[in-house]
Amino acid sequence: MTLLTEQILYKVIKKRPNQSHKGTYGRILIIGGTQQFGGAVIMNAIAAVHSGAGLVTVATDAANFTAIHSHLPEAMVVDFNDDLTPYIQTNDVILIGSGLGDRVDLVQTTFSAVSEKQVIIIDGSALTLSAEHHLTWPKGKLILTPHQMEWQRISGIAIAQQPSDALNLMARDKFIKKPVIVLKQFHTQIYTDNGIYELSIGGPYQATGGMGDTLAGIIAGFTAQFNVTTLSDTVLAAVYTHSAIADELAKTQYVTLPTQISQALPIFMKKYAN
Amino acid sequence: MTLLTEQILYKVIKKRPNQSHKGTYGRILIIGGTQQFGGAVIMNAIAAVHSGAGLVTVATDAANFTAIHSHLPEAMVVDFNDDLTPYIQTNDVILIGSGLGDRVDLVQTTFSAVSEKQVIIIDGSALTLSAEHHLTWPKGKLILTPHQMEWQRISGIAIAQQPSDALNLMARDKFIKKPVIVLKQFHTQIYTDNGIYELSIGGPYQATGGMGDTLAGIIAGFTAQFNVTTLSDTVLAAVYTHSAIADELAKTQYVTLPTQISQALPIFMKKYAN
Amino acid sequence: MTLLTEQILYKVIKKRPNQSHKGTYGRILIIGGTQQFGGAVIMNAIAAVHSGAGLVTVATDAANFTAIHSHLPEAMVVDFNDDLTPYIQTNDVILIGSGLGDRVDLVQTTFSAVSEKQVIIIDGSALTLSAEHHLTWPKGKLILTPHQMEWQRISGIAIAQQPSDALNLMARDKFIKKPVIVLKQFHTQIYTDNGIYELSIGGPYQATGGMGDTLAGIIAGFTAQFNVTTLSDTVLAAVYTHSAIADELAKTQYVTLPTQISQALPIFMKKYAN
Amino acid sequence: MTLLTEQILYKVIKKRPNQSHKGTYGRILIIGGTQQFGGAVIMNAIAAVHSGAGLVTVATDAANFTAIHSHLPEAMVVDFNDDLTPYIQTNDVILIGSGLGDRVDLVQTTFSAVSEKQVIIIDGSALTLSAEHHLTWPKGKLILTPHQMEWQRISGIAIAQQPSDALNLMARDKFIKKPVIVLKQFHTQIYTDNGIYELSIGGPYQATGGMGDTLAGIIAGFTAQFNVTTLSDTVLAAVYTHSAIADELAKTQYVTLPTQISQALPIFMKKYAN
Repeated sequence: MTLLTEQILYKVIKKRPNQSHKGTYGRILIIGGTQQFGGAVIMNAIAAVHSGAGLVTVATDAANFTAIHSHLPEAMVVDFNDDLTPYIQTNDVILIGSGLGDRVDLVQTTFSAVSEKQVIIIDGSALTLSAEHHLTWPKGKLILTPHQMEWQRISGIAIAQQPSDALNLMARDKFIKKPVIVLKQFHTQIYTDNGIYELSIGGPYQATGGMGDTLAGIIAGFTAQFNVTTLSDTVLAAVYTHSAIADELAKTQYVTLPTQISQALPIFMKKYAN
Repeated sequence: MTLLTEQILYKVIKKRPNQSHKGTYGRILIIGGTQQFGGAVIMNAIAAVHSGAGLVTVATDAANFTAIHSHLPEAMVVDFNDDLTPYIQTNDVILIGSGLGDRVDLVQTTFSAVSEKQVIIIDGSALTLSAEHHLTWPKGKLILTPHQMEWQRISGIAIAQQPSDALNLMARDKFIKKPVIVLKQFHTQIYTDNGIYELSIGGPYQATGGMGDTLAGIIAGFTAQFNVTTLSDTVLAAVYTHSAIADELAKTQYVTLPTQISQALPIFMKKYAN
Repeated sequence: MTLLTEQILYKVIKKRPNQSHKGTYGRILIIGGTQQFGGAVIMNAIAAVHSGAGLVTVATDAANFTAIHSHLPEAMVVDFNDDLTPYIQTNDVILIGSGLGDRVDLVQTTFSAVSEKQVIIIDGSALTLSAEHHLTWPKGKLILTPHQMEWQRISGIAIAQQPSDALNLMARDKFIKKPVIVLKQFHTQIYTDNGIYELSIGGPYQATGGMGDTLAGIIAGFTAQFNVTTLSDTVLAAVYTHSAIADELAKTQYVTLPTQISQALPIFMKKYAN
Repeated sequence: MTLLTEQILYKVIKKRPNQSHKGTYGRILIIGGTQQFGGAVIMNAIAAVHSGAGLVTVATDAANFTAIHSHLPEAMVVDFNDDLTPYIQTNDVILIGSGLGDRVDLVQTTFSAVSEKQVIIIDGSALTLSAEHHLTWPKGKLILTPHQMEWQRISGIAIAQQPSDALNLMARDKFIKKPVIVLKQFHTQIYTDNGIYELSIGGPYQATGGMGDTLAGIIAGFTAQFNVTTLSDTVLAAVYTHSAIADELAKTQYVTLPTQISQALPIFMKKYAN
């Protein structure tokens, strides 16, 4: 178990090359947000755009389009009841699951359409639906972001047993393509090809709805644009960034709202780019 | 009659325990907001989220969903014409009545479904409808937030007689389950199991539409998350916080808008957490 | 011709009495905003609320409700295709005309329903429609806010002749109930029962769409709440405030947006309350 | 090839004359924004309004109206499926193409209706559609804002050959009415009647979706209001302003969002007005 430190930020967040364009920083497709949980994809997208993703498209219930554009004209939208296959195939990073409700059909379509080169981040309802429906995991580079109950559903490991790294590793080994697993808990643990990492920053001021959606959006934004090191390192940097910003805000705030964390991304990230 | 002071904030607002999650800080269901008065539930929810509630769901006219998410992707929404019973049963705090119009059916459904362990805050139209339709009060821990005319409707005590604590107490004693009553007026009085409290802060810069909706939202947020002391103390702290923030803003502002008060909650509350 | 100075603000803007409530600061009904010009009533309402009006209701095309609430949950809304008579009768100040398009029916209904005690501010399209359809002016306390072309339509005085105070006064004298006329131009002139006033502040940084809608909203907000002096004085103070804030913003800005002026109202007004 | 410097701002951005009104600063019609790409016209319009345009109307999918007004009540809206001819004829500057999808019919209508005195800015999809459908260019004063692939489609010059000024000039010479061409790339080049200019400021922090829509909006705002020098100079100043603001923001931010650039316009422009 390695403790995550600020060093991961210096390793991952790099000054951008002059000769680059928005395609250089990745295309992200976010799939989620029933009408009831539309806020989830809004928070995904605010985080992804503020972390510096090149292009962000949100596939969601059409009822959410106006609220998305009210926050973020920078994002494009598509009705998740349209055929998403062409969208899935032309984006570099797919984030699926935040506020997705019971739309297992969308999870299946996505899992089928994702290719090996793509990054796919599986969050929230998509994790539960995958477990409940025994879906075959997609071919892409997998990132899972379960909280403990979701991990129990996927892995079969009861929450009480999850402190056992060995059990978690065994569950991870069963995946044909081993995922990066961000196991969200008091001290979030990240299982990677290079070992297990633990996050010791962050705090209870983050315990509010939408915090996980924001984390998923930052992971999407980071994996879309950073590639000088490994995918694992990039996820670690995203996880660290999310809580480091919360810690900064918490110096003066009793609670830290998800959207405040996203708004703080551009200034926070600047400090580490070199 | 006890004068409320800043001490109530030190007593109620506590540093959060490290090992906690959003469930620790409570689930709130807000029921209100016809299309015409949709702003009321938006202000409820902005206040609840900024005060640190774990999860906030707004049951309202579907016409209000986009405006809610434009302000607050952190909130979830549900159409108040759907069956709300499962939502009522799975939330810790129910706030009903802000901008509810004449929807007595929703008040009845809610009053029937609330259980003894839940906190129910009854505001605005729900108070008037309860009086007009002689509804049976719900089983939950009751908090009423009437202004003087609403209190007259509920208690039968004319506004001119309301300065009489004895009469107000008698009216309160008729409730099977004695409520915390926040009687909003020039110097707001709060009737509790531990006596009567009076608020001497706040001022006429608060005399603008939506101020009461914001107060109800802060009460919801506080009761959802704070429990080291009594429910009465928690309500007292919410009432004090609402006007103390207004007083701070009024040092530089002629009027203090409801949403400004909510935005100021995280920084204000930080000063008292220890 | 009297030059308007900052003194008018000290005369009109007063510290609020402690014993007051939102009713004390007036109920405003704003009627306007076809779908195409919906922004106009949004700017009316932002100005009215930020200037300290007690309660603001916007009667407009239902297509504008969500955008209004996205800016201003403090405002209530009503479909202007519903029967507005009960709304007109229960508000203290009626502002009609901003972005109203060709809805002469709404002008007629409003003019008929307004009573002598009410203040009615007639702006934008309502001025043109009144002239074109030879409507009978309403019974209320009239405030007209024409720009020069609108004044030509109402008075029959060509723009080239409008520098003649005598002609303008003659036109004003034809009204049974003499209105306060805010004749918007390079140096705006205000015709009142106490003489003609001229505004020498403000500047070309204000020359942007929506500036007049914001002025109308401030006039509504001021007339709803201030009554220690005459209605004329209150209008003068509103006109002065609008441009004085623009002048402050213009110290650092090339253009001053209407919504920025409204946002600045609470802090600006504080300086004059005593 | 002339290097663009800050001097162009002093040359173009002038203190406004006192005797002026919103008509003095131009009427802009923005045509674009299918439902999916609605954010594009929002960013056009935010940029145009903040740069000081007198009046801005957005012709777009009606689904985008609420999001536009949530950002910008200062803008007017019209359904782009209505007959746009009267709107095209009564505006001074037409900006067409941002997020326009495959709506070649709108490009054709616009190109036919534009008169010689009008400025027409052709952006995004309108460029691609013009090339694909071999449309006849409109009679107005043309400004094209292609990125390299769009320029390839229009000119037939492959991206690899575009460093050749001679080829680009030859392509430009084929236009009956020679356009100002803003060829967006690492160092953006602007082809004008007075020679070729190159932008050496700006950076990769701008590589995010919507940056071009914002540039198009600033060009619209500048050409609508500035006319003391040539149209070419005005475009050059707009291009310089866009990246100069990004450079300022990038001193403290890792990425610079399009809407942040627009928000900064009024303060930035003030520094150059004399």
